[in-house]
Amino acid sequence: MKKIEHIGIAVRNLEEANKTYEALLGAEHYKTENVASEGVTTSFFKIGDSKIELLAATNAKSPIAKFIAKRGEGIHHMAFAVDDIEAEIERLKSEGFVLLNDAPKKGADNKMIAFLHPKSSNGVLVELCQEIIPSQNFAEKKGL
Amino acid sequence: MKKIEHIGIAVRNLEEANKTYEALLGAEHYKTENVASEGVTTSFFKIGDSKIELLAATNAKSPIAKFIAKRGEGIHHMAFAVDDIEAEIERLKSEGFVLLNDAPKKGADNKMIAFLHPKSSNGVLVELCQEIIPSQNFAEKKGL
Repeated sequence: MKKIEHIGIAVRNLEEANKTYEALLGAEHYKTENVASEGVTTSFFKIGDSKIELLAATNAKSPIAKFIAKRGEGIHHMAFAVDDIEAEIERLKSEGFVLLNDAPKKGADNKMIAFLHPKSSNGVLVELCQEIIPSQNFAEKKGL
Repeated sequence: MKKIEHIGIAVRNLEEANKTYEALLGAEHYKTENVASEGVTTSFFKIGDSKIELLAATNAKSPIAKFIAKRGEGIHHMAFAVDDIEAEIERLKSEGFVLLNDAPKKGADNKMIAFLHPKSSNGVLVELCQEIIPSQNFAEKKGL
């Protein structure tokens, strides 16, 4: 793991939360992105070498809608940057961690991502993120 | 806010969690510190420009014991590094945020700290951290 890539925060209303986090961080959100496959709209803030990702559900089946219904708004996941997500998945499996994704999938912010089950990391939903670099031809190799 | 200083994770058993996070992060915990005033023992890992802080309760009245009793293990707070914690507290108050500490107090890892109430930051317990630098004479000024 190289660094904390971002912290994902589940919010009810993205517009209001953007204002709150602009005031909190003293920084403007610089990107909004819809991830249809996850049923979320995301908003990003830069903070040092990491990001804050606000996540709002776009439908009732979204994992974010379920999370908020169960626990209320709050920190949803912690994401780490990795250089080689497939190697990292294999390493973590061999260490006994439970992966929610056997193979990386396309996530927000130009990333290949995979999640670890919170039960193997003390209740923390951990995301692995590898930046998609066109020259690596990662997306093409994966048929994306 | 300069950067994510650390992410605080509430755990039941610090020794076991240290092993888990050593395997997860591929890094050894480099410091264990007892914070008697908070009823916690903490363990730190470096990850990029930030840290992971594992927190285990040392008594049943500890905020960490109450958090785990209510929600189970998981992410407890998100901490940001600031240059001037008193100025930041005043700025955040003027923005309408609710502070849990009107004045900064001594925390783990050689920091002056203050917490924001989660209700003003979408369910996220936010900590402000200012490094105590001896030449600034901050601790002496505060009578610590």
